[in-house]
Amino acid sequence: MTKTLFLGIIGVGGVGNAFLEQLGRLPTPPKLILLARSSQTLLAPSPGYSPAIPIASWDKATENESLVKCGALTPAEMVDYLGRAPGPTIVVDNTSDLGLAEAYPLFLRKGISIVTPNKKGFSQNLGLWDDIFAAATEGNALVYYQGTVGGTLPVLSTLRDLIATGDEVIRIEAVLSGTLSQLLGTYMPGSGTSTESWSSLVARAREAGETEPDPRDDLDGLDFARKLTIIARIIGLRVTGVDEILVESLIPVELRSLPSSSEGVEQFMNQLAQFDSRMYEAKEAAQKQDKVLRYVGSIDVPTRTIKVGLHQVVKNSRIAGLVGTKFVSMYTKRYKETPLVLEGGGGGGEITASGLIADLLKVMERLG
Amino acid sequence: MTKTLFLGIIGVGGVGNAFLEQLGRLPTPPKLILLARSSQTLLAPSPGYSPAIPIASWDKATENESLVKCGALTPAEMVDYLGRAPGPTIVVDNTSDLGLAEAYPLFLRKGISIVTPNKKGFSQNLGLWDDIFAAATEGNALVYYQGTVGGTLPVLSTLRDLIATGDEVIRIEAVLSGTLSQLLGTYMPGSGTSTESWSSLVARAREAGETEPDPRDDLDGLDFARKLTIIARIIGLRVTGVDEILVESLIPVELRSLPSSSEGVEQFMNQLAQFDSRMYEAKEAAQKQDKVLRYVGSIDVPTRTIKVGLHQVVKNSRIAGLVGTKFVSMYTKRYKETPLVLEGGGGGGEITASGLIADLLKVMERLG
Repeated sequence: MTKTLFLGIIGVGGVGNAFLEQLGRLPTPPKLILLARSSQTLLAPSPGYSPAIPIASWDKATENESLVKCGALTPAEMVDYLGRAPGPTIVVDNTSDLGLAEAYPLFLRKGISIVTPNKKGFSQNLGLWDDIFAAATEGNALVYYQGTVGGTLPVLSTLRDLIATGDEVIRIEAVLSGTLSQLLGTYMPGSGTSTESWSSLVARAREAGETEPDPRDDLDGLDFARKLTIIARIIGLRVTGVDEILVESLIPVELRSLPSSSEGVEQFMNQLAQFDSRMYEAKEAAQKQDKVLRYVGSIDVPTRTIKVGLHQVVKNSRIAGLVGTKFVSMYTKRYKETPLVLEGGGGGGEITASGLIADLLKVMERLG
Repeated sequence: MTKTLFLGIIGVGGVGNAFLEQLGRLPTPPKLILLARSSQTLLAPSPGYSPAIPIASWDKATENESLVKCGALTPAEMVDYLGRAPGPTIVVDNTSDLGLAEAYPLFLRKGISIVTPNKKGFSQNLGLWDDIFAAATEGNALVYYQGTVGGTLPVLSTLRDLIATGDEVIRIEAVLSGTLSQLLGTYMPGSGTSTESWSSLVARAREAGETEPDPRDDLDGLDFARKLTIIARIIGLRVTGVDEILVESLIPVELRSLPSSSEGVEQFMNQLAQFDSRMYEAKEAAQKQDKVLRYVGSIDVPTRTIKVGLHQVVKNSRIAGLVGTKFVSMYTKRYKETPLVLEGGGGGGEITASGLIADLLKVMERLG
């Protein structure tokens, strides 16, 4: 690694924070020249792109007189600034912003590589997916997005290796929502029992920061469906988008019209208890079969069926034992009888960030 | 990938065969210019290094008049030939030859990259290990050796990612002998029972080609110990070699002085039944605890204890359920309560070869 590499970071939330912390501990991090938060952007002054933003003290860097401060930049403005840096440049998108993801082709065509856990660019319409990879080829840039699915769990790279070496995926079974895995593993443990109601569990997890600020963003299953969309595309299925996935939402149908506002969240949390009996009935039905409830996704390649939803799974099975853990099981032409299994890590900022750092290091290795 | 890449293959056994078959199906394989078997070598004629050896019909290539045929080359001669190829060159070592592994630094210092499942270079003395990586840096060459431990199971790359991103491994538990996993999973299934004697099982597995030609090479645990040595070194333990691993051999002590000749194998197979009662007693003891016997390895980082041997493991546990499958469980600073788990594939030529192809593709990506 001899060339100087340049880095832009967009978004400094929980993952972004952990990412910056781990970035600062790399032996030779790239030069940080752009740091964008929702309404302010910090830049190394052009045309020299020096001094860089100090990674260790990034949160105090706004006080640094030699750096440029400005408001939010448009993607096109960021591309313009980063595209002129005097060396290979990488941008890390730590947001979940669709608008930004739609601009990936702009970055890539300018030769700016992308590392991101933002699922939007890869699970939206196929046109965007195709354009991202065409742009990467044209711009001779790289796109690494392992963080969209499994943190440091090497789901995408393992699938890519299988495909590249001529294997064929037949079926995938997965638990890819750490939050739903935690909630259901607690509601109905693989061994032992629990009497807590579903709504009380959800409320408690929300207070502990274990769900999204709006728990409906976990319960609707869409985030999980986006991950399956990405996996399906990697194994060669031309999935049009999340709309093609059969998603069983855990939001009671009566509550689906509540507004997405913060008021709507409170109304949802207040009314959820009225539907506790439904989850309880599902639990009872599973219990009778000596099974437990889990929120599971699957991709069946021969029938092109992709779905996520509540399943009764055998006690003592691998999936029954999960509490908050992610799990992917891959049946392929070569792994026919015993699948290739990856398991671990319920997400969380630190683990997601380390997946990003691992991707960043690979991009640096290839660009440097 | 624009540059022409050149490839040498040493060793065409079961893995080598499957490797060549998969290589032939790559969209843009490198130019095959050296193919070495035990006593004969096939070369593309220098100085043009053209025509290349046809990959699809490599086994008939000796009849090809335009190729050079000669006897076995020394490593130094191969380095000399490969080092003059007019582009980046990769050598795939499909042997388990220590002599060849000791010559890796020669290859690497000449800028020749290495892809191999040969454990010898990475599990022998630390001096060789250090020299290999120093030579790679000096020669600006790459060494990929994922195939030494887990085929397409991304054990080494996952560990490397964890370490590179600042995580610390605390403990590893593993089942890394597909053969012993198969034998013990059959001798004492996780559910159900079996009454077959140990010696009859071993004989049957040998006949089916599921053990090494000399089953003692599986039963002595050394191959597994070599894998643990490699893992231990990757996570930062300066292990001197296999001698530092506590290995419980499954070869009865009375039979350890039998010669390694084919006569010795037959004597071993004939006498093994005399010691069936020992395995049976171990089985009975486990049964009494409601446990099963498995051959398990572990690395405990704080106490620097590395061992492989027969263990009683709880029925219904992950490890108890394995029959012929490999398994690695990693407890780290970040994966503290629920480990990161990789599982799958008992080896076999096709899966080992696909791990090599995956490594080769990564090397091609970085060199091309």
